[in-house]
Amino acid sequence: MQQISSVNNKLIKELAKLNKKKYREDTGMYLIEGFHLFEEALKAHRNYQYLLGTDDALSKAESDYGVDLSGKRVILIKSAIARHLSSTKNTQAIFMVLKIAQPKNFTFNYGKWVLLDNLADPGNVGTIIRTADAAGFEGVILSPESVDLYNPKTQRAMQGSQFHIDLVVSDLNDAINQLQSYDIPVYASMLDQTAKELPDFAKVAQLGLVIGNEAHGVSEMIAKACDEKLYIPIKGQAESLNAAVAAGIMIYHFA
Amino acid sequence: MQQISSVNNKLIKELAKLNKKKYREDTGMYLIEGFHLFEEALKAHRNYQYLLGTDDALSKAESDYGVDLSGKRVILIKSAIARHLSSTKNTQAIFMVLKIAQPKNFTFNYGKWVLLDNLADPGNVGTIIRTADAAGFEGVILSPESVDLYNPKTQRAMQGSQFHIDLVVSDLNDAINQLQSYDIPVYASMLDQTAKELPDFAKVAQLGLVIGNEAHGVSEMIAKACDEKLYIPIKGQAESLNAAVAAGIMIYHFA
Repeated sequence: MQQISSVNNKLIKELAKLNKKKYREDTGMYLIEGFHLFEEALKAHRNYQYLLGTDDALSKAESDYGVDLSGKRVILIKSAIARHLSSTKNTQAIFMVLKIAQPKNFTFNYGKWVLLDNLADPGNVGTIIRTADAAGFEGVILSPESVDLYNPKTQRAMQGSQFHIDLVVSDLNDAINQLQSYDIPVYASMLDQTAKELPDFAKVAQLGLVIGNEAHGVSEMIAKACDEKLYIPIKGQAESLNAAVAAGIMIYHFA
Repeated sequence: MQQISSVNNKLIKELAKLNKKKYREDTGMYLIEGFHLFEEALKAHRNYQYLLGTDDALSKAESDYGVDLSGKRVILIKSAIARHLSSTKNTQAIFMVLKIAQPKNFTFNYGKWVLLDNLADPGNVGTIIRTADAAGFEGVILSPESVDLYNPKTQRAMQGSQFHIDLVVSDLNDAINQLQSYDIPVYASMLDQTAKELPDFAKVAQLGLVIGNEAHGVSEMIAKACDEKLYIPIKGQAESLNAAVAAGIMIYHFA
């Protein structure tokens, strides 16, 4: 075990930068925080680059989770460092640095997928991924412009679903073409003259479900590529549904 | 029209306090912000106590919404005051002070209702109310311990649904007894040995749907009073769903 007691330590300074997208991209690493994500990472047998915790937190990691605290990758930190690394108000003072696992050359030839077309809100993206996980979907495909998966807010909303299902950043047109070439229908969530109400759609064994940007919806080119358009009927006076709630209703319709 | 140019003005100081629950309770008033809520309040023909805006914002209110800017209740404010009153980063600089409309002696003898048992997160409460509105429910009944309806975060998530459906703070046991006395079944969202999966529930013309606290679920006494318990089946590895998403899936199942 290493010990670090200053927030000015070089490694701590570098790890604190992992809360920024640019630095995550440069290093291919990200930071998770709290015992829930820590436990999920252990369950998924992920190798960590570093495990950091205060005395109390590391003791808990050893006693409750059987983590071996010997070795250089385990770092005992002071509370001040935990607060420095944390993106929450009340940190549990346990952190892991993980490699970003981005599947390459993924083939979308089976199962149920959610496709996110340029989503902007980290909470929405994380919540939709969590819902796709709960519904037993294969994974989530994110357009390159969608919000970063390893944003601390996305992480908190995802609740560890990155360890359960496939998350693939891909050109959506390519993904849609591939799904369709395997006879998997792709539906876009949007309202236009050709769109049908969600309850009219039968359950299907496999599908792609495209969710559009919170403000601008599904982009035109993507909409054209889809087999059907669907929408959730609004029966009251609300203008629309919250994006993550709407996605959840659609995902569970096809679960 | 009045003009106020100092954030130290007595009225402005009082209105800024409306962002706090205690002051809303003391005065029976609350503050809404932004053109969307402003428009919803106008559509609902709500009388405002005050309408405040910067020069640009009030001009837009007059030209786009036909608001009469004469009279003492309209107040022209400086941008600095708008920022002071605002609970958002980028304020649209338009505000209304409204009376809190709490229905008294409401009789729950018809329709579909969501009952919130001690919900703690303002965003969840607002989002669930918005979903109940979209699904054509009659209204939402909140236990007295639930988060305050007029919290700025609840307001933002509600998106004006307080102008569309009935929001009633009530003892939940009383409300459940009343619904049941009119042969309206009441279901609790919870997982125990007697709970059934949501897809097994038939659509019903009228119901009460109880959603429990994010951490502790539906309280024991309330659970006992309900006719059935239901849960959303988890098919993947996620431990649970986001509270507002889960409520949305259940509400739309019965919409």
